[in-house]
Amino acid sequence: MNARHESIALPGFADVEAAAARLAGVARRTPLLAATPLDEQLGGALLIKLESLQRTGSFKFRGAYNRLVQLDAAGRRAGVVAFSSGNHAQGVAAAAKMLAIPATIVMPADAPRTKLENTRALGAEVVLYDRGRESREQIAQALASERGATLVPAFDDPHVIAGQGTVGLELMQQAAELGKAPDQVLIPCSGGGLVSGSGLAIRALAPAAAVYGVEPEAFDDTRRSLAAGVLLRNPPEARSICDALQSSPPGRLTFAINRELLAGILTVSDAEVEMAMSRAFRLLRVVVEPGGAVALAAVLAGRIPLAGRTTAIVVSGGNVDAATFIAALGR
Amino acid sequence: MNARHESIALPGFADVEAAAARLAGVARRTPLLAATPLDEQLGGALLIKLESLQRTGSFKFRGAYNRLVQLDAAGRRAGVVAFSSGNHAQGVAAAAKMLAIPATIVMPADAPRTKLENTRALGAEVVLYDRGRESREQIAQALASERGATLVPAFDDPHVIAGQGTVGLELMQQAAELGKAPDQVLIPCSGGGLVSGSGLAIRALAPAAAVYGVEPEAFDDTRRSLAAGVLLRNPPEARSICDALQSSPPGRLTFAINRELLAGILTVSDAEVEMAMSRAFRLLRVVVEPGGAVALAAVLAGRIPLAGRTTAIVVSGGNVDAATFIAALGR
Repeated sequence: MNARHESIALPGFADVEAAAARLAGVARRTPLLAATPLDEQLGGALLIKLESLQRTGSFKFRGAYNRLVQLDAAGRRAGVVAFSSGNHAQGVAAAAKMLAIPATIVMPADAPRTKLENTRALGAEVVLYDRGRESREQIAQALASERGATLVPAFDDPHVIAGQGTVGLELMQQAAELGKAPDQVLIPCSGGGLVSGSGLAIRALAPAAAVYGVEPEAFDDTRRSLAAGVLLRNPPEARSICDALQSSPPGRLTFAINRELLAGILTVSDAEVEMAMSRAFRLLRVVVEPGGAVALAAVLAGRIPLAGRTTAIVVSGGNVDAATFIAALGR
Repeated sequence: MNARHESIALPGFADVEAAAARLAGVARRTPLLAATPLDEQLGGALLIKLESLQRTGSFKFRGAYNRLVQLDAAGRRAGVVAFSSGNHAQGVAAAAKMLAIPATIVMPADAPRTKLENTRALGAEVVLYDRGRESREQIAQALASERGATLVPAFDDPHVIAGQGTVGLELMQQAAELGKAPDQVLIPCSGGGLVSGSGLAIRALAPAAAVYGVEPEAFDDTRRSLAAGVLLRNPPEARSICDALQSSPPGRLTFAINRELLAGILTVSDAEVEMAMSRAFRLLRVVVEPGGAVALAAVLAGRIPLAGRTTAIVVSGGNVDAATFIAALGR
């Protein structure tokens, strides 16, 4: 770790544990599925953390609530602003509603309709922007300054990272309850909040377990950044059905954690993601959104040896429009 | 209860508790979802037991395992035979596989393909029959006699009823853990195993809670049988997308229990079932099969007052072909 990274206050396992205490009875303890028909097909034990069943349909509620609940009375009154393609939007909106905090969310006009509708249904004010021509960061920053509101980052914030890390903490606790010890854990990665926070918990509880991030192959900024040792962006022409995994570059905090923690990054194609969504429908009876399916896609596509090992994966979200889902079922 | 019913050994709550002990660590403790977006839409608290996430995708595994695990060594060697449109088939096949018991399942040739494939994948021998021209009971009975195998009824068996009853037992335990006490519980009903067994547990743990069965409106044999006081069949021309809820008449054991326990039967149309499947996709991110969605359909269709009450429902299965699911999403 270099001097610049040391000057940033990185969250640690104690912060994940503190987040878990704040989230107890507030976030759902989502199921960890074991002994699915996939075990036989893959030749190893697969544990599947169904975080798609979290409040708002993704893990994002955890980090948002852990951030918002720590605002003081003045901060709560002034409200919060966030920008998001949809899952962080719903997480912040739901947490804000529970805590009676006014929330404004900046979302791309072409976000999945279900994500826009659900965010509005949670009582947040939604401000749309054009992804091709406008900067959501600038719009959100201007709104926050104007209103004295707090900008809630989607991933590059110690409290957000610690909140998302409770997914990994729960996964390891639930695996232990089943008498299982994961040899490797695969976690979807974009900004890196979920994988870095979860990695903190997994390293603390099972130092020998290998933690992998999984990215869409067209949005592999974390993979390239880890290789280069500096933060790299995805090219503007990159496209993927994984609408939830398109932010770049990696966060400064998340990258500082991930460069120490991760065993590597795996990547998957859109076709592999659709296959995984279809298999999840047929064999697990759950609805998985494209970005939520990348870790499942990586194991189904044989991206990593599974035979004789215990592999855990996180299914991180289930907010998908019917048309996108139907197209995936055709695979 | 008349003399004839008294002569039948009906299961009681102690049998459900014994089944729960046998199933501990074998069946999944499926999640009970609370605080979903439906609460606000319905004006009351809705608790949703996601039994669609059970092994084999329906509650049927519980009753099948509770029956098979009590076979002696000779009975296990001789094997089991069952007839089923698909969910009992998979439940028996999975339980038989875990216990190393040979299983033969008689299934209609037009059963949902996913149910046929999954039953075969579990290692059972599948014997197809023509629903319009052949009697599955006769075929299964002949196979059982010929092989000295045990016929495993889909619902009219004390051990099967007790096994299915663990759904209701878990539901009430999980509700208590959330600090909730259901005023009413709605449970899908066909042969009546799930609702009668669950009713035994609910009556024991919460005598004031009202338990309702829910049937497709074209297959309301339990509703009519309760009104008439005798076992009635559904008409041969009846049709419904709820392939899992088409057996008739009600079982003798299940009917004897249900006539004492149930507050009533609610019915829903196929269109209401499809709406419920679509809402479950969008708001709960789960895959529900038509027959598994009838209790959800009843609350969404306003079949019972919900305002100010705590209502629990069972989502009993998720084994649905893509074409049927896609059609429902169009609602």
